Amino acid sequence: MHMLINTPETVVPDALRGMALAHPELTVDVEGQVVVRRDAPVAGKVALVSGGGSGHEPLHAGFVGHGMLDAAAAGHIFTSPVPDQMARAAAAVDSGRGVLFVVKNYTGDRMNFAMAAELAEDEGIQVASVLVDDDVAVTDSTYTAGRRGTGATLFVEKIAGAAAEEGAPLDRVEAIARRVNEASRSFGVALTACTTPAKGSPTFDLPPGELELGVGIHGEPGRERRPMMTSAEIADYAVDAVLTDRRPTGPVLLLVNGAGATPLLELYGFAAEVHRVLAAREVAVARTLVGDYVTSLDMAGASVTVCQVDEELLRLWDAPVQTPALRWGR
Amino acid sequence: MHMLINTPETVVPDALRGMALAHPELTVDVEGQVVVRRDAPVAGKVALVSGGGSGHEPLHAGFVGHGMLDAAAAGHIFTSPVPDQMARAAAAVDSGRGVLFVVKNYTGDRMNFAMAAELAEDEGIQVASVLVDDDVAVTDSTYTAGRRGTGATLFVEKIAGAAAEEGAPLDRVEAIARRVNEASRSFGVALTACTTPAKGSPTFDLPPGELELGVGIHGEPGRERRPMMTSAEIADYAVDAVLTDRRPTGPVLLLVNGAGATPLLELYGFAAEVHRVLAAREVAVARTLVGDYVTSLDMAGASVTVCQVDEELLRLWDAPVQTPALRWGR
Repeated sequence: MHMLINTPETVVPDALRGMALAHPELTVDVEGQVVVRRDAPVAGKVALVSGGGSGHEPLHAGFVGHGMLDAAAAGHIFTSPVPDQMARAAAAVDSGRGVLFVVKNYTGDRMNFAMAAELAEDEGIQVASVLVDDDVAVTDSTYTAGRRGTGATLFVEKIAGAAAEEGAPLDRVEAIARRVNEASRSFGVALTACTTPAKGSPTFDLPPGELELGVGIHGEPGRERRPMMTSAEIADYAVDAVLTDRRPTGPVLLLVNGAGATPLLELYGFAAEVHRVLAAREVAVARTLVGDYVTSLDMAGASVTVCQVDEELLRLWDAPVQTPALRWGR
Repeated sequence: MHMLINTPETVVPDALRGMALAHPELTVDVEGQVVVRRDAPVAGKVALVSGGGSGHEPLHAGFVGHGMLDAAAAGHIFTSPVPDQMARAAAAVDSGRGVLFVVKNYTGDRMNFAMAAELAEDEGIQVASVLVDDDVAVTDSTYTAGRRGTGATLFVEKIAGAAAEEGAPLDRVEAIARRVNEASRSFGVALTACTTPAKGSPTFDLPPGELELGVGIHGEPGRERRPMMTSAEIADYAVDAVLTDRRPTGPVLLLVNGAGATPLLELYGFAAEVHRVLAAREVAVARTLVGDYVTSLDMAGASVTVCQVDEELLRLWDAPVQTPALRWGR
């Protein structure tokens, strides 16, 4: 245990207290574990609400702000928030034009967001939902029927968030979110396991000198385990997995995402290798984002997400965003 | 070794290749290990040049862009860049109004920046230098005579960079940089040692369950080693060290900085504890930045930097900045 915490029980509320102090532009309900844009509800705007288990920071609360999410609900570590949290978030941010739930495809999240949608609709709030399931590594994993939702969540939240900020109606924001998810594919690798504060020991056993190819963001098993590979070999493997599942027919957004404990120095080197493989496969990269955005506590490793974009999606990607973790353009 | 790399020898150029591909707004000389704003030299503007050993990313290359650095020179891991790199950087960015070197206080950096200043002056470039030495933990450490330069580097580069962007002359930009350094104090803790790619094993021996209080950003020894402490206890210790050295008489900027492998979730919780201690000591926090900005490869840990600001320094801190790692305001 080399954790900078008080107690395992207070890790999430402690972090939310810190977010509240560092980001006065957010309203943080520490007890209820909901983070909301301070200017919500934004008149005339469709609202975006997401959430999920904690341990993937900055996802999701770090993406609350102008041009992205209106609110995020935080569960315990690696555990879905409860329906009441998302229902309260929806009530806090709905301007009357409806709310889009962005849901990563894990059984608990699906169930709890579906119940939250019912609760919100009972209060007269119009709700649509989009499921994110971009991880090509495996289907029907530890917590998931179908494919897991990982890095594409950032693309869905950013691009649909920009459409909402422009004033698009709910059905249009929902359709754009769905298009982004359908155009996105991801693949991740772990070089070490992660350790949850409550457990205090690694969530899975990965011997030193081996890596897990296709790991999930909670340390779920991937496709295979191999002796350590070079950055170039990992890029070959990961990009091939992504392109085999869906071959882009136009330019892509690229996310080279750190799992949490891999230095940025290494991520940039890995990004160079991912670019090399994409160029060799004649996939043009329109934009590249490198950093820790969808993490797995203290796991070392990285993931690759590509999202094919047309002119409209690229314009929405480039639109201004002002959140704790993603900012540009104004 | 759980590194996402090709070979230890290529870690830095591989990362620079990735930076070039991810950030078309930068000009990256991969072989020469210099990163420059693409729009440099900016007419009528004093230029800021920094640099240092690699392994602290995003520092320094991640802070190149509008409102901050004009260029950064990258050395090998934990090794100063050579004078020729900074001299070439200065030549690439000087608009005729002079260049400010921002130098962290390590013996190699001081010597090499001093030689670079001579080389640049021989070419007719006016050079001023500011030394950053904010770390209160120890004096005369492994690589340093006097105090080490750590987190305050970000405050110096941002605030002096904003002054330069506004058109301030060299002596004024230099004076502001010096004021920021003098108003800043830092203290760091390590929960694990870091591992350099070339060595492949931890740079110092830190038994599990212990932490190093006052560690340097290369793993240099601190004040003492203790059995693991809570986030609250670490905040008490670190903030006390900072305030004992210099008691602010006005509001401060606060950086709660991750060493590299500590999850953002934990950093925010630690930020809450740092705020608690500062409030108890009646130090008002004007702005808080939480994240990995001045790292130590894969070290787990964190540091606290406070910088007392007056109205002018706060205005310059809030001014627009557009770099890979720090962006806001336009």
